[in-house]
Parts: sequence; structure tokens; C-alpha cells
Amino acid sequence: MKSQKGRYTLGLDFGTNSVRALLVDIRNGRELATAIHAYASGREGILLDPKNPSLARQDPADYLKGIEVAVRQTLAKAKKADKVFDPSQVIGIGVDTTGSTPIPVDRDGTPLAFHKEFKKNLNAMAWLWKDHTGFAEAAEITALAAREHPEYLAKCGGTYSSEWFFSKILHCLRVDPKVFDAAASWVECCDYIPAVLVGETRPEPILRGRCAAGHKAMFNAHWGGLPAKDFLAKLDPKLGGLRDRLYDKTFTSDAPAGKLAPAWAKKLGLAAGIPVAVGAFDAHLGAVGSGVFPGKFVKIVGTSTCDICVWPSDRPLADVPGLCGIVDGSVLPGYFGLEAGQSAVGDIFNWFVKYVQPGGPVQDSHASLTRQAAKLKPGQSGLLALDWNNGNRTILVDQRLTGLLLGQTLHTRPEEIYRALIEATAFGALTIIRRFEEYGIRIDEVINCGGIAEKNPLVMQIYADVIGKEMKIARSAQTCALGSAIAGAVAAGREAGGYGTFPEAQAAMCGVKPRTFKPDPGNHKVYLELYKLYRQLHDAFGTKDWSGSMYNVMKDLLAIRDRQLT
Amino acid sequence: MKSQKGRYTLGLDFGTNSVRALLVDIRNGRELATAIHAYASGREGILLDPKNPSLARQDPADYLKGIEVAVRQTLAKAKKADKVFDPSQVIGIGVDTTGSTPIPVDRDGTPLAFHKEFKKNLNAMAWLWKDHTGFAEAAEITALAAREHPEYLAKCGGTYSSEWFFSKILHCLRVDPKVFDAAASWVECCDYIPAVLVGETRPEPILRGRCAAGHKAMFNAHWGGLPAKDFLAKLDPKLGGLRDRLYDKTFTSDAPAGKLAPAWAKKLGLAAGIPVAVGAFDAHLGAVGSGVFPGKFVKIVGTSTCDICVWPSDRPLADVPGLCGIVDGSVLPGYFGLEAGQSAVGDIFNWFVKYVQPGGPVQDSHASLTRQAAKLKPGQSGLLALDWNNGNRTILVDQRLTGLLLGQTLHTRPEEIYRALIEATAFGALTIIRRFEEYGIRIDEVINCGGIAEKNPLVMQIYADVIGKEMKIARSAQTCALGSAIAGAVAAGREAGGYGTFPEAQAAMCGVKPRTFKPDPGNHKVYLELYKLYRQLHDAFGTKDWSGSMYNVMKDLLAIRDRQLT
Repeated sequence: MKSQKGRYTLGLDFGTNSVRALLVDIRNGRELATAIHAYASGREGILLDPKNPSLARQDPADYLKGIEVAVRQTLAKAKKADKVFDPSQVIGIGVDTTGSTPIPVDRDGTPLAFHKEFKKNLNAMAWLWKDHTGFAEAAEITALAAREHPEYLAKCGGTYSSEWFFSKILHCLRVDPKVFDAAASWVECCDYIPAVLVGETRPEPILRGRCAAGHKAMFNAHWGGLPAKDFLAKLDPKLGGLRDRLYDKTFTSDAPAGKLAPAWAKKLGLAAGIPVAVGAFDAHLGAVGSGVFPGKFVKIVGTSTCDICVWPSDRPLADVPGLCGIVDGSVLPGYFGLEAGQSAVGDIFNWFVKYVQPGGPVQDSHASLTRQAAKLKPGQSGLLALDWNNGNRTILVDQRLTGLLLGQTLHTRPEEIYRALIEATAFGALTIIRRFEEYGIRIDEVINCGGIAEKNPLVMQIYADVIGKEMKIARSAQTCALGSAIAGAVAAGREAGGYGTFPEAQAAMCGVKPRTFKPDPGNHKVYLELYKLYRQLHDAFGTKDWSGSMYNVMKDLLAIRDRQLT
Repeated sequence: MKSQKGRYTLGLDFGTNSVRALLVDIRNGRELATAIHAYASGREGILLDPKNPSLARQDPADYLKGIEVAVRQTLAKAKKADKVFDPSQVIGIGVDTTGSTPIPVDRDGTPLAFHKEFKKNLNAMAWLWKDHTGFAEAAEITALAAREHPEYLAKCGGTYSSEWFFSKILHCLRVDPKVFDAAASWVECCDYIPAVLVGETRPEPILRGRCAAGHKAMFNAHWGGLPAKDFLAKLDPKLGGLRDRLYDKTFTSDAPAGKLAPAWAKKLGLAAGIPVAVGAFDAHLGAVGSGVFPGKFVKIVGTSTCDICVWPSDRPLADVPGLCGIVDGSVLPGYFGLEAGQSAVGDIFNWFVKYVQPGGPVQDSHASLTRQAAKLKPGQSGLLALDWNNGNRTILVDQRLTGLLLGQTLHTRPEEIYRALIEATAFGALTIIRRFEEYGIRIDEVINCGGIAEKNPLVMQIYADVIGKEMKIARSAQTCALGSAIAGAVAAGREAGGYGTFPEAQAAMCGVKPRTFKPDPGNHKVYLELYKLYRQLHDAFGTKDWSGSMYNVMKDLLAIRDRQLT
């Protein structure tokens, strides 16, 4: 019997630069094998436009190639690692991707990018999450929604982002109507990949994920799904027309998008007919892989952070201002998924090392600065920083904010600045956690994952000391792919040897590392004093309409900068 | 006849680390020869205490050795440079020194440091200007004066500094009463050197300079000279007692302190009996050497700045708040000398290069950062900084202020920060100039001197663009020593072939370099916009008692720092 030999699912994690496959033993979460395939096109997988720094696209062909290479390599490694492993033991597949990364497709669901006539057209490619070309359209959507449908904005922090679905599509319509007109529909990457695997990519039958729809396309059952047709038509009549070619229903990732198509089964060396779960975003399935549950707050800490928690859908929940999104079922079915985030964390440390201090090799500099910074006591440098070098995602939702460093003397050393920057991101993290708690969302545990959580114990200790809660680290170093594997196990269902629900699967497959970071009460006390000052700066420079507000300063500087640069 | 062969005076400039002698042709200011002697003791001439970073002392023996070496070398060089030069053509000597740098002396005027019993006692040495050990005593003096004699403070910006005469002496009294008790009097370095040269060092007959007395010892004719005996006695009865052993009269530098003593004439190879001018501080005679006159504002721009201007003593002048001092005759006899300054200028650039960016050799980094920074337009970096890394001397008179950098993104480059720091010092300079102008002091010309003015055209151009006035550079690279030589020529008087007044001497001996820096009107306009924002930060963090003031932030951080460091 298969069950005696073990049961496995595959998680496919489509990141910004590469795709990872991870083979997981669903009985215990053991990661049997993994492989990465870097996208071949563009710069590190991203198609750029030298004339437009806001543009970031991807060739969907890279995704398809990536599935094949990464899965086959993973299975080959698994066979080497475990002689009794057999691909027939793989009972399900889950998929997570970046987002919002919409792809214009034809009536068959084939990306326009695959058509000869659009082969070299960047607008026919996948519009990568970090593409900001639609910033003007985002402002337009925000303004219209604020006037006519404030409820649309209430669920996504009050501002519709240039990174999101309709900003990108409306921008395409404006700058390249040929592509827009040729598109039968637009499909999120996380919906496209499962559709490909199950062999049914036509827009109509595709099962669209709740996560992408709810967080990026203002989809909500309260107002009957996507934004109203007349709302979209006011932005552009053609956009109103597109609504009929999008979707009315969405699905959570416990549902199978379908069964693995024979052609793909053959290509990958898997059994045909195993379920492929409905796709979701990387951060959301990363939270699942970290064991997210009411009371368990997950921080994915890397170049930026994504903070995720859940709240039972049947319990009252106010619209928490400043969040990136509140979506029923976006993380776990039956729970609101709440998303927040910091626009830059590791990116700020990298900026300091690479740009301000271009002395030595970046890795060494991080290590040596961390070593030196670890010797400092909280507050002993006299420094305080704001973590806004890339704007503020939560709770201010304002990209037009910039960094601040204060307190430097003639003796201030680089490791003191480095530590102040770490502390600034910790204060930013505390601000987010407090916002959740202010709205009644209980946080008992903080589970961290992502590159910085994995690699930098000093950052984790400072987060514990600042936030005043124990910091745990997810056991898996690949929580996104693990979350996808969990979705695959739930989509497979109990009958097929999988799990009936996410919490069941998480109980078996997730865990935290033995080493945790407990707050030092003395340090926490000092940090609370410093946080008071951080908050004073935060409110002075980040909020307006009060006497003494310094809100204008960063904005005015950016306005002068933009004028001087043109 | 001597006059056909030329007439010369010697300027002796006692700096922080070395003494310079400069031989100047008084007919035209030509600098015939110069030599420097570095003080031998301590670290770069400064005696330090590893246990107390506030302490900075000097061995007066280094000064005496320095006179001999520097003057003899200068004369030797002069003979080589000009075959007809003869030391008998030297008709006077002027002296400038750092200050307040008081020296405890015995009844003969011999420094206690020369006594066997005090030979190794740092408290018996010269208390160098940058010694801050008396910071608690300074606060005590300020508090008492604010209560009982606010007029004392009105002439020195409202705060009595730890760098000044009575703070140091009171501190000595507190920590080392043996030295205090042994001291017959305390003599400023700028008064001690001329006394040595004229062979009469006894405290009583020494001619004390107006400059040191007025700027650092609260000496003012309005209240009968030094602060009242009962005022000093309230600080400590012994300090009240010392007042009788100090002085009641002070002199401007057109007066001779006496004639060169035969013993010293022999030692130096000069004619005995030539006049030695009353001494003054380096910055003040530096202003003289730069051609200071009503309407001509002198900036000595180095690691910090000293800004000096003069105003006719017979014309009304309000107490300008925030200045370092307003003293009748401290720069030119018959004029108020007004002193302001910035606590750090070049020191901030050095801090950035040496501490924040310890990549390459310091000189190269300055040069390459300057090259890169020169390519930027005003405002294009989006950065704004406050120049308070070493506190703010004028106009806030507050050492407990710290630096601030604002506007950084993930793309901010070091040359942008470097330029922002230069601009911050320019905004600080503009703030000082505006303060003078607000109180009716006309400024037609800005004449710069000092290391940065000499070496960095980018800084000068930014100063012109920010301040909106043409920046001129003093012709001499040694304006302090030149100012002393001018004092020597005036002390010699017309009869001896010198000059009757300072302005006469300046007209002949001073000038500016042909290259000046004119403001670019477009840049000035942008800088005025940026200055508005600088001023907003300046007032928010630097002034208190208004709603929205951020005055507490830097103070609170320093308080936390000080607590964490102990």
C-alpha cells in the first residue's frame, strides 16, 4: 500500500526571479527534495524597459519551462535521497505565485505573448507585481472609488495600488489598446499556472483564486464580486466591457482547480489525474506554511515584509485602516485573511551596505556590521531612524514618504547606523502589530519566515525586544512552497490520503525552529521609550492636518526633486 | 635707509596642534617666508586623559619651544628667498592664539606646569579651548547669571560655555584645589605669549587683551570689567578671591604689550626693543587678515566655522540673540567685534568620509565625492540635512542638538548625502547671516578663509548659491598669522615705519583672490525653497514651547544614550 511508503505533495512557488518545486512528506512536513529554476528572460527573469524604470514584465513561457525543469529535478533528487520514493506517491500539487501579476490571454487562455504578432510586445507579457507603470491609473481608481464606492477601498487600506490588477489593465488599455482589444480576458499568474497543469486554460472555466481577486481586484461577496460594471465603465467604457469577460466566482485553495492533465503528467513524470489546488499568492501560502492561525501572526521578512494573520469569518471584524487587504478565505478557508506589510526591510540594510558604504563585499559588510551592532545596547547610539526609504505600506499607505536618520554626532559609527536601521524596521513592525491589536485582533505568537528571519538572529532579537513578544522562526526555510504543498494535500482530500482541512494539514506539516527569541525586559523598556519618539516622528512626518505637522517636508522635497530631474 | 629695503613684521599664530610664524612685507602684504612647528607633547600637541574624553590640555613649554623654532626657520627661509632681507627690517610682532586657553601661573607669571611638583599634573597645564571638563560649571555659571546678571549673558548669546575661562577655572578649583591655590593668577595663552616675549610675565603688569576678556570672561566696561566679585564668590568664595588677582583693564591689539626683550631678541635673531602687540584670538586676527570692516563679513571655514564682523562702537547696536559674543574692540579698535559660528562644518564632511564610509583613503574620498556631488543639481537628491552633528553654536547656542538626514530612498547615493551635508552647512551659514541682517547689520561682502574655503570650490559655490551673495576668498592662505603681522605693524606705529590704524594696514596688506563665486540665480531660487524646509526642521527640532515642537526628540535620545552608556 502507498500509505506505508509515504505520501507526498508538490509545492510550486513562482517567485520574482525563479520557480521552486518542493516535495513534502505530508505526514510530517519533511522536505524530501527541492529544485529551483531561474527564469531565462530579461534581467534575472524580469523584462525591463530602459526608458521606463517603472516597468517590470515577465515572459509566461519562462513559467512553463520552469515547471518542467524544477519538478523533474526535484523528483530526480527525491529518488536519490530516498530509494523507496516513487513519483506515484505524489497525491497533489499546490501553486503559489507573485501577484498581482496579470496576463492578457486569448479566447483559449493562451497568453497573447505566445502569439507571433505580440511576441516582442512587453504589454502582452505578464505584468509583474512590481510593475508601477499604472501609477496614474491607480490614483484615478482610488479617486473614483473614494467618491462613489468608498467600501471598495475600505477593504484594501484606503488606496488602490499601482501594483494591482485594474491599474495595470487600465494602463494597458491607455497605452496599448491593440493588446487590450486582443485580450479575451486577463488571468492572474496564480490562476494561470493551475489552469495550465489541469489542461484547461480557457478564461471561462478557469477557477479564479479568492486571494488574488480579493486582495488586488476589489472582489468581495458584499458587493457581488468584482467592482460594478458602471464603476469600471466610468474609468473607461472598454474596462466596463472587460468585466463580463472576467469572473463572478472565486475559490479558496482547498478546492482543486482540476486534475493534472495527462500531457503534463507525462512531461513531469507524475501520475495523471492528481488534483492541482486553486492557486494563491506566495505570501499567503507562505503564511499557511508558517502555521498561520488565529492568534498566530506571520511575518515574512525579506527585502520587504508581508505580515499576515487570520480571523474567523463568522466573528465581527471592523475595517482596519491602513491594511493592504482584508479578504474572506484568502489565506485559510473560513477565515478572513488580513495582510499588512513594510515596503522595505532588508532592502534598507542592503542600501546602507551597497550604496552608502561601498567599501567591501556586501556579504562581509553585513556580517561585520551585524557583529559590531550586536555589541550595542538599545539607545546607546543616540540614533533614531524612520524605515521609509521605500515609502510606508502599513499603516500610512503612502509611497511618497522617505527615510530619516536623526541623532548622529561626529562620532557616530556605521554599525550604530546599521543598528538604528534595524531598529527602525522593528518599530515599523510594532506599529503594524499595534494597529491589529487596536482593532481587537489578538496576537499570541509571532512566527517569522523569509531570508532575514532565517539568517539574522540580531534582527530577530531586536524585533523581540522592540515588539515585546517572543519571535519564533518557521521550521521550513521554504514556507511558500510548503504552503503550496499543504494546499495540494488539502485539495487531494482525506479520501486520497490527504487532509480534510488546512489546520489539520498544518498540524502535521508545520512547525517552528527550536531556537526562539525572547524579549529582554530591560531592553524592551528602553525600546518603548524610543518607540514613543519613533511614533512622534512617524506622526509628525506621516500624518497631516494638525498644527505642527511636518507632513509637507518629504512631499515638498520629492516635488522639488521631480522638478529638478526633468 | 631701511624703508628702501622693505619693512616687515612677524605674525605668530598658535593653533591647536602647532605654531606658525609668518614674515610679511607690510607695504603690500607679500608673505616672504613662513614656518610651522608642531607641538611635541601628547597626541598632536594635545595632552589627553584616556579616562576623560572631555579633557584637552597643552604643555606651555611647547609654545615657547615653538616660537624659537618657527621664527628662526622663517627668518632663515626669508634670507634665502630675498638676498637683501635683513632681520633688522622686522619692526614688530603680533600674536594670536586659540582661546579660551587659560594657564595657571605663579607670582612671577611662570606656568605652574614648569614647577617640579606640578610637572605631571594635567590641571597645571594650559586648558586648551576644546577642553569641556567644566561643562557642569558652565551650566552653573549660566544659571546663576540668568538669575542675577542676565546682562552678562546678553553679550555672549545667552549661554556661558564650558570652553570658556571661568568654567575651566571653577572646574579646576573643584577637582584640584591644590593647583587652584597655587595659582597666583590665570593668564590666557594670547596674553601669556606676548608677556614672555617682552620679558615681563608677572600677572600684575601683563597687558590683557580685550578679545579674550570680552568674549570668554564676560569682561565689559558697562559693568566695570570682569563679573562682580560677589557673583564669582557665589559660585565659590575662592573664585571671588581670585578676581582680585585677575585684571581690571584690557587692551586692543593696536597697543604694544611691550618691547621685545633682549634675551628673546637674541634667541630669535631679531632686533631687541621692537614692539610686540597685545595678543588676540586666532579667528579675530584671522578676520583682520581677511580685511574685515563694516559691511565685510568674514567666514573662517574649517573643521568648524567662526564668523566675524564689526560694527562702529559709536552707533547703536542691539544685543543680537544667539551670537557667541559682542565685544567692543575685540577685532578692530573702535568697533564692536561680533562673533558667531557653526560647531562643525569640515568635521561633518570628515565624519561622513572617515566614519560612515571607511572604504578608501580619506583624501581620495573627499575628492571623488566632491567630483560626483558637483554633478548634482540643487534639490535633485530629495535630501535635506541639519548641520548639528556637533550641536549648534549660532543661532540656537545648544550643544545638545544632533544631526538629521531626511529624504533618503533605496537609491540614495553617497555623493548625494555628501552634497546634502555641504548644503546643510550652507543653510546654517545663511541662518547666521540672516540673524545679523535682522538686527540691522549690513553685509555687503562675504570674505571666506580657512582650509575649506581654500581647497573646496564646490563648497564655496554652494555657499554662494544658498546665501545669494558673492563668495570671495581672502588672498592669504594664512589669514590668522597675517592678522597678527598686521597687529605688529600697527603696534609699531607710523613713526617706526608701521601704520597708525588697522584699516590703514589692512588696505595695504589684505586682499582677495581673483577667483570669486557668484550665486547662480536659478540655483538660489531652488535653495530658497529648500531653506524654507531647512528652517522648518531647524525650528521644529531646535526651538521649544510651541505646539508641535519636536524639541524633545534629540534631547530625549541623548538622555537615553547617556543613561545607557553609564
